Amino acid sequence: MSEPRWLTPDQAEVWAKYRRVRRELQRAQEQQLLRDSGLSAADYALLAPLSESADGVLRARELGSEVDWERSRLSHQISRMEKRGLVTREACVDDARGSMVRITEKGRDAIEAAAPAHVETVRRLVFDPLAPDEIRVFGDVLDRILGAVEENS
Amino acid sequence: MSEPRWLTPDQAEVWAKYRRVRRELQRAQEQQLLRDSGLSAADYALLAPLSESADGVLRARELGSEVDWERSRLSHQISRMEKRGLVTREACVDDARGSMVRITEKGRDAIEAAAPAHVETVRRLVFDPLAPDEIRVFGDVLDRILGAVEENS
Repeated sequence: MSEPRWLTPDQAEVWAKYRRVRRELQRAQEQQLLRDSGLSAADYALLAPLSESADGVLRARELGSEVDWERSRLSHQISRMEKRGLVTREACVDDARGSMVRITEKGRDAIEAAAPAHVETVRRLVFDPLAPDEIRVFGDVLDRILGAVEENS
Repeated sequence: MSEPRWLTPDQAEVWAKYRRVRRELQRAQEQQLLRDSGLSAADYALLAPLSESADGVLRARELGSEVDWERSRLSHQISRMEKRGLVTREACVDDARGSMVRITEKGRDAIEAAAPAHVETVRRLVFDPLAPDEIRVFGDVLDRILGAVEENS
């Protein structure tokens, strides 16, 4: 086997920073959401696409691919949210084995109440500290990484 | 309450890309690791700092802050790895309630075998697609976000 390609010191530093941002930004957002709205990150992740969908209803399968969760994790989370009255499950009209998930009035109120502070946190922690050209390059960097990840899979 | 500050369309696009990179890059890395080395991401996350520490041993508390996990998650993961012979637990010499975690010979062999392909994946998916000035700006962007997150906490 040829000599492995280790990271250069600069790359190792950027990689460590990326992992810290991933961890600490996610934690900051989860704390803000729970403190200000009583919603978990998992609640928000499902309520957001449901609230934006036509009629507030999505096939469970579509919802699962929005969040990229395993079937069992999705099912458990939906059950928890059903108990709290945030969503309801319905039979799928054209697929006997499939199910649909519908956001309730209470679910819609919850995400509408949560969204402003949640988005404010994203602005304050991610975009306010960046200059416009940094946001542009950041977008390009993410595009290139996504391209490589997709080519890889 | 004043009008909420929503994201601009450009910001919303960058934010969606960031979340996709976070999810898909992590999944690509986990798949690579498991396929090529039989290690989970959690195994690797603990073996890496242990293998780099003096004598291959760390206080459980230090190890927990390296990975930023809850105490119970850390403890379960260590138990699983102990059963597979990758680490051992030891009493802490100067803190009766603390414990130490030591990487075994087998654990060291496992991470040494896993590291080259794991780092190669980071290079291929993250750094190879970026120009040197993009890597520099990416590092600056991450610094600014980390600064805002730390100020926030």
